[in-house]
Amino acid sequence: MKPALSIIKIGGNIIGDSTELSRFLSFFKQVSGPKILVHGGGKKASDLSKKLGIETRMINGRRVTDKQALEVAVMVYAGLINKSIVSELQALECNAIGLSGADAGLIKSVQRPVESIDFGFVGDIVSIRTKALQELLQSGLVPVFCALTYDDGGQLLNTNADTIASELAIALSSEYTTTLYYCFEKPGVLADIENDSSVISHINKQSYFSLVREKVIVEGMLPKMENCFHALDHSVHKVCIGNINMLRPNPSTFTTLTL
Amino acid sequence: MKPALSIIKIGGNIIGDSTELSRFLSFFKQVSGPKILVHGGGKKASDLSKKLGIETRMINGRRVTDKQALEVAVMVYAGLINKSIVSELQALECNAIGLSGADAGLIKSVQRPVESIDFGFVGDIVSIRTKALQELLQSGLVPVFCALTYDDGGQLLNTNADTIASELAIALSSEYTTTLYYCFEKPGVLADIENDSSVISHINKQSYFSLVREKVIVEGMLPKMENCFHALDHSVHKVCIGNINMLRPNPSTFTTLTL
Repeated sequence: MKPALSIIKIGGNIIGDSTELSRFLSFFKQVSGPKILVHGGGKKASDLSKKLGIETRMINGRRVTDKQALEVAVMVYAGLINKSIVSELQALECNAIGLSGADAGLIKSVQRPVESIDFGFVGDIVSIRTKALQELLQSGLVPVFCALTYDDGGQLLNTNADTIASELAIALSSEYTTTLYYCFEKPGVLADIENDSSVISHINKQSYFSLVREKVIVEGMLPKMENCFHALDHSVHKVCIGNINMLRPNPSTFTTLTL
Repeated sequence: MKPALSIIKIGGNIIGDSTELSRFLSFFKQVSGPKILVHGGGKKASDLSKKLGIETRMINGRRVTDKQALEVAVMVYAGLINKSIVSELQALECNAIGLSGADAGLIKSVQRPVESIDFGFVGDIVSIRTKALQELLQSGLVPVFCALTYDDGGQLLNTNADTIASELAIALSSEYTTTLYYCFEKPGVLADIENDSSVISHINKQSYFSLVREKVIVEGMLPKMENCFHALDHSVHKVCIGNINMLRPNPSTFTTLTL
């Protein structure tokens, strides 16, 4: 049987709140077995852009990464957020190592081709060095990935953190039984968006289609769920969605997704 | 016999000039055997501070690292500079991995105690995880260190890049025959500061004391040289000082220091 591996993604709202981040890291530290952390950091990048007088350009609700915006992303994601998380984990005696996709050539992308919209320096993942990542895990290290990859020409590229987490889980499923955790501010997928007690504890592909048909799952959750089922379709064992309490030894309710 | 290891430090003037940096990286890539790169980045941090309206505080010509200055250093050193170098090296097929001292707990410091001057978040190195670093080197990775370390409490600390390079060389001398290269804008230690052709090709401890007595080596070079002889006194095999051309297969003149 393959060993278990946990891949945990945290969103910008947790990162933006240092108390909440510290709570998360103390739970993360206690997750047993090999594990990987993937973090976004959108809001902190917007804050720095604002201070520098750089306009955050959005098209159809999606951020456009021009040269200046990329520099900000590299500074905030790979610098400020990544190293703060790593040093805090080290103080908790969790042997973290901070990584972008460029480090050890772990995650290679291509710049998204311009079709109707030019998203700028945004990357779509093309390959992952599974063996090199496995070596890091086997030596007891805990990789902490920021949402940056690179291309053949050495260009750094902004890359969706949800996608990095799912592509890492897919690639490592050849060697591990992978569980993918998406931590955000809600306790799970809710039957009633206004009611935090309405967590749907289990969703499979069949019930997912019903939930979409019945418009229980709408808008922002749709791409997230598509991403989850894409992972499950590609050998990821299980996907869990919830707030940081889902990582506690006796977790509160959260949503588990299986095929 | 121990295998050879090259530890190469580049200063802010090379980093600040993208053409010069690319030339350096193409030479660095060709350095054979295991190798480590250490980079500073002072000027780029000052530029960002200026844009953010943060005053760069100096006492006796030395930068004071308050909370804001540390954030800038982390963003610029560990983010912008480190990841740009790593992705450029990856494009040259040099398997670089970007690191701060916090990553994998490689370089631990203590915050410099306040005596007459409070330098703020500045660290003095106390320990290096030699074995973990050796494992990275043995798996074919090329560590690229920025000038940041961390302490027991998980606080990131600004740390002199020259010192990081020499302390790494000292720690790794138990396993390797280490050569330490300091690359800066001058072709070596000059007998006449105004004349770039006056490179002193070899200095040992005896001739060093003469050069100090005769005031050939003065001011800024003194701490640099003290740092070099400190390394040689602690089992480092050789120290080389010069510009980036000293890394070429047929290098121009540079200064070699031995005991």
